[in-house]
Amino acid sequence: MANSKFEYVKHFEQPDVLLPNTWIVVRLDGRGFTKFANKYEFAKPNDRRALDLMNAAAKAVMTELPDITIAYGISDEYSFVFHKTCTLFERRASKIVTTIVSTFTAYYIFYWSTYFPERPLSPPLPSFDGRAVCYPSVQNLRDYMSWRQADCHINNLYNTTFWALIQKGGMEAPAAEKLLSGTLAADKNEILWSRFGINYNNEPEIYKKGSVVLRDYELVEPSSQKTAANEVDNIAEPVQQSKTQAEKEKKLRNKAQVTIQHLDIIKDEFWDRRPWLLSNKPGKPSKAT
Amino acid sequence: MANSKFEYVKHFEQPDVLLPNTWIVVRLDGRGFTKFANKYEFAKPNDRRALDLMNAAAKAVMTELPDITIAYGISDEYSFVFHKTCTLFERRASKIVTTIVSTFTAYYIFYWSTYFPERPLSPPLPSFDGRAVCYPSVQNLRDYMSWRQADCHINNLYNTTFWALIQKGGMEAPAAEKLLSGTLAADKNEILWSRFGINYNNEPEIYKKGSVVLRDYELVEPSSQKTAANEVDNIAEPVQQSKTQAEKEKKLRNKAQVTIQHLDIIKDEFWDRRPWLLSNKPGKPSKAT
Amino acid sequence: MANSKFEYVKHFEQPDVLLPNTWIVVRLDGRGFTKFANKYEFAKPNDRRALDLMNAAAKAVMTELPDITIAYGISDEYSFVFHKTCTLFERRASKIVTTIVSTFTAYYIFYWSTYFPERPLSPPLPSFDGRAVCYPSVQNLRDYMSWRQADCHINNLYNTTFWALIQKGGMEAPAAEKLLSGTLAADKNEILWSRFGINYNNEPEIYKKGSVVLRDYELVEPSSQKTAANEVDNIAEPVQQSKTQAEKEKKLRNKAQVTIQHLDIIKDEFWDRRPWLLSNKPGKPSKAT
Amino acid sequence: MANSKFEYVKHFEQPDVLLPNTWIVVRLDGRGFTKFANKYEFAKPNDRRALDLMNAAAKAVMTELPDITIAYGISDEYSFVFHKTCTLFERRASKIVTTIVSTFTAYYIFYWSTYFPERPLSPPLPSFDGRAVCYPSVQNLRDYMSWRQADCHINNLYNTTFWALIQKGGMEAPAAEKLLSGTLAADKNEILWSRFGINYNNEPEIYKKGSVVLRDYELVEPSSQKTAANEVDNIAEPVQQSKTQAEKEKKLRNKAQVTIQHLDIIKDEFWDRRPWLLSNKPGKPSKAT
Repeated sequence: MANSKFEYVKHFEQPDVLLPNTWIVVRLDGRGFTKFANKYEFAKPNDRRALDLMNAAAKAVMTELPDITIAYGISDEYSFVFHKTCTLFERRASKIVTTIVSTFTAYYIFYWSTYFPERPLSPPLPSFDGRAVCYPSVQNLRDYMSWRQADCHINNLYNTTFWALIQKGGMEAPAAEKLLSGTLAADKNEILWSRFGINYNNEPEIYKKGSVVLRDYELVEPSSQKTAANEVDNIAEPVQQSKTQAEKEKKLRNKAQVTIQHLDIIKDEFWDRRPWLLSNKPGKPSKAT
Repeated sequence: MANSKFEYVKHFEQPDVLLPNTWIVVRLDGRGFTKFANKYEFAKPNDRRALDLMNAAAKAVMTELPDITIAYGISDEYSFVFHKTCTLFERRASKIVTTIVSTFTAYYIFYWSTYFPERPLSPPLPSFDGRAVCYPSVQNLRDYMSWRQADCHINNLYNTTFWALIQKGGMEAPAAEKLLSGTLAADKNEILWSRFGINYNNEPEIYKKGSVVLRDYELVEPSSQKTAANEVDNIAEPVQQSKTQAEKEKKLRNKAQVTIQHLDIIKDEFWDRRPWLLSNKPGKPSKAT
Repeated sequence: MANSKFEYVKHFEQPDVLLPNTWIVVRLDGRGFTKFANKYEFAKPNDRRALDLMNAAAKAVMTELPDITIAYGISDEYSFVFHKTCTLFERRASKIVTTIVSTFTAYYIFYWSTYFPERPLSPPLPSFDGRAVCYPSVQNLRDYMSWRQADCHINNLYNTTFWALIQKGGMEAPAAEKLLSGTLAADKNEILWSRFGINYNNEPEIYKKGSVVLRDYELVEPSSQKTAANEVDNIAEPVQQSKTQAEKEKKLRNKAQVTIQHLDIIKDEFWDRRPWLLSNKPGKPSKAT
Repeated sequence: MANSKFEYVKHFEQPDVLLPNTWIVVRLDGRGFTKFANKYEFAKPNDRRALDLMNAAAKAVMTELPDITIAYGISDEYSFVFHKTCTLFERRASKIVTTIVSTFTAYYIFYWSTYFPERPLSPPLPSFDGRAVCYPSVQNLRDYMSWRQADCHINNLYNTTFWALIQKGGMEAPAAEKLLSGTLAADKNEILWSRFGINYNNEPEIYKKGSVVLRDYELVEPSSQKTAANEVDNIAEPVQQSKTQAEKEKKLRNKAQVTIQHLDIIKDEFWDRRPWLLSNKPGKPSKAT
C-alpha cells in the first residue's frame, strides 16, 4: 500500500501566511451564546461567573502562548494581539487562529465546573469561532482596541438600562426596547438615575470597561507616547537577538505575572505607562506582584 | 464615546471564502501530543482509550454539524469532509475551521474523564490545530482519504513492529529504529511473525484501518461507481430544493445514526455501497439501527 | 553597498497559486473603451475593424502561449481558458494574468495600424485589465462560456435595435432607450423587422455569436458528450508523459492552425465534435488547413 | 437565451483586496528579455535607447495614473509605488497590476519606433509580467527601494567589468566569468581602472543609479526625516478631504511635471527634500519647470 500515488493531494494545501510586520489580532466569539446563556440561566445584563470564566480561559491562553502581548475581552468575545514582529508558526493564519481557539475552548470547558459548580455542562457544549486580522500601524491597532472598548461601553450602558426597566421597572422587553430606541447615552444615564437610583458610574469596572489581560511589569512615568508608537512603527523586521539576550527576555517574560485588569485602554495613558505592550521588550518586574 | 471613528478598522478584515463547488476537508491535529501522550502514559503503539476519545469527539462534531458527510481519524488527527455543494457559513474558511476545531476540543476535554477516569486532566491542556483544503473532484477527495488511510497502515505496521522489538524483544529504541530502517512491509510482517508470533492481519481493525465516522443508511448493491462519481462531478452548483424536500432530507439525516466503523475506504466498494457520501442525498434508514 | 540588509523585503511577497485541477479562465476588458471608441469613431453598434483587431490580438496570444486551449471574445473583452491540468508558471495567478494582458496589449497596439490605417493611435493609449477565475468542473467551465455567449446575444440584439432606431429611425437616444425598456427578445426582433426590414437572423455571425479562437483539428463524429466531460472531470492531476509522447503532442499542437470562428458554443455539439478542447490531447490534423 | 441560469459562475470570482494602510508596490519585468535584447542587438552592458524607452513608458504610466507617487526602473524592470492611503480600484490586486502592466506595454510598443527607428518590431513582441506587494511601514518601503537600487549598482558594476573584459580585453565569456567569480566591488573597480583606464565613478548616472520617476515640486530644506516618516506611519486611514481641498491638490498634481532623474534614493536626503513622496501632499510648484 504505497502512499506515493496519493501524496499529490498535499499540493492542494494553499499557503496562508499573514503579511509580515503587521499586528495580528485574533478575535474569537461564542457560537450561539444567546441560547447557551439561557440554558445555563446566565444573570442579566452581566453574569459575573461567565465573565470570570472567559477571563480565566484567556489568561490560560496567554500563559501558554507567550507571543501574545495583550488580550481584551467583553461578553462572549476575546481579542488576542500578537506583536507585529511575531513569527509564531511562520505567521500561518490557520495555525495561529485554530491554536488560540482550541486552547481557549479547552480551558473554558475545563474551568466550567470551577465557576458554575452547581450547573454541570451537558451537550451541546459551548464552542467558539475566530478569525485573524492584520493591522499595519500602532494607530490601527490602538483604534481596533478602542473600537472594542467603545463597543463594550455602548452595549453595557444599553443593557444595564434595558434590564433595569424589565427587572426593576416591570416592563416587557418590547416596551423597554421601544423606550430606549433613539436615546443618547445621557438619556440612558438619566433613566437609570431618576427611575432606579442607579449611578452608572458606580457600576462594576469589569462591566463598564471589559477585561484586559497583560503581563504585569512596573509602570513607567508617562513620557511622549507618540515617540514610543513611532519607534515601534519604525521597526521594519524582527530584531536578530543574541541567544543570551533572547534567553534573558524569555526569563523576564515568564517571571511576569499575567494579570486581568479593567482599565481604560482608549486613552494614551494606558499605553504610555506600559511601553512593553508596543515595544515587545519586557519591562522591570512589578513590585506589586 | 461614539464608536464610529474607530469602525474603519473593520475594513482590514479580509474575505476567505473557499472556492465553490469543491470538496472542503478540515484536518485537525493534536498539538504536542507526543509530550501529552507521555504525561498521561498512553499505551504504545496504540492507546485504545485515547482513540475512543478521539472518536467520541469526532462523532459529537458530526452530530452537531450535519453538513459534514464523512470523517476519518487516525492517531491524534481527524479529517472532516464537507460536500462540494455545502454553503455552511458562506464557505468562510476561518469560520468553518475554527468551528470544527473548537467543537472537537470541547468534546475532547468534556469526555476525557469518561475514557481516562483515573487520570484527571491538568494544565497544560490538550489542544488541536487545523486547516481547510479544497478538492475539486471526487477522485481528488477519494485520493485524499486514501492518502490518510495508507498513512495509517504504514505508520501502524511500523509502530507495531517497533514497539514489539522494544516491549517484547527488549531492544533499546535506537537499535529498533536501526533494524527497521529500509525494511519493506513484508520484512516487518516477517519480524512480527518469526520473532513474536504476531500475525499482523489479526491486529485490531481500529489500529490497522483507522476510524470512519458516517451517517448509517442501508447499504446498496454495488453498481457502477464511476457513474456515481461522475454524476457528482457533474453537479455544478448547490441544488435549489423545495422547502418540503429540504425538510424531508433533514429529517432523514437526523434520524440516521452517526456510527464509527473501521473499514477499507480506499477500495471502490466502500463508496459504491454508500452512495449518499458522494451524492449528499440521504439513503434509506438502515435496518440495523 | 551590500544588498543583504535590504533583502528581507522579499518576504513580503505573498504566494498566489491557483487551486490545482481547476480550469483557469483569464478574462480581460478594455479600460474606458466607450471613450476610446468615440475618439476613434468606432461604428455603431459594431465596428468590424475593432473586432478583427481584438481577434488578431487574441490569436497572437494563443499562438505565443500554447497552454491556452480556447479563447472567446465579444466587444472589448476576451476570455482565455487554460486546461485544468495546466502547470504554466506553477499556476501563479499574477504571472498568468499579467502575461496574458501584456501580450494581448502588445499585439493590439502593434496591429492597430493594420486595421485602422487611416487613424493613427495617439496617447492616451488603449489598455486592458484582467483577472483569473478558477472553475472546478467541465460543467462550470461550459456554463462560464455559455454565460459570455448569452451575454453577447442579449447585448447585440439590444444594440442592433437601439442603433437602428437612432440611425434609421431618427430617434434620440433617450427615446430609443425608453422604447426598448422592458421589451423581450421577440419584441426587438419585431421592431427590427417591421420598422426597418431587418431580419436579425441574417446579421453577421461575428456580431451574433462572438468569436471563438481554437486550434483546428479534424472534427469528430459526435458521441456521448457526457462521457467525454466525465473522463475529463476524472482527471485528478497532470498526467506524467514520456518525453517522446510530450514532444509528439507539442508538434501536433504547433502544426495545428489557430483559427477564429463564430459558432454556437452553448450547445453540446460544439464540444462533442472538438474533444481536444476538454481532453487537452491534440486531435488529428484538420484536412481543411 | 436567458442568461440567468449561467450567472452563478460569477460567484467563483474571489476577492483580492490588498490590505489597507500599506504601501503597494507593483513591479513588472520584461519576459524573456535576454532573447529579445539579442534579437534587436541591444548594446552591452547597457543600451541607452532601451533604457530611454523603458523610462518613456514608465513616465506615460505615471502620467495616466496620478495615484502613483514614485517609480523606479533598472534594466528591464520597473517598480511603481502607490501611497498607503491609495484607494484606486478599491485596492483590488488584479485590477491594479494588470492596469499598470497593460499601460506600460502599450507605451513600450507605441514608442518603440521613436527609440529604435531603424529596427521595426516584429512578432514575437516584447511583453511584461508583474505582481503587487504590500509594505506596511515607510521603512519597509524605503528598504524595498534601496534593495532595487543596490541591485542596480551591483549588477552594473559586474556587467561593466564583464563586458570590458570581453569587448576591450578580448576575453571569451566563460573566462571573464571565471575571473570575476568571487571578486569584491574594489576588485572590479581595480580591473576596470588598471586594465582599461575606466573610472567607474565616471560612468553615466543612469547606468549606476537607475531611473527615478516622480512629480517635480520645489525641493525643501532637509529637516528631520524621521519625523516625516513617522507622521506618515501615523496616518491610520485615508484622509477625508473637502471637495475644494481635493480639487486643489488634484490641480497641483496635474500641474507638476513628471520627471526622470538618476539619483541616490537610498540616502535620507532624497526623501527629506521631497516630503510629498511620503506625505502624498503635493508640494510647491518647482521653479525649474
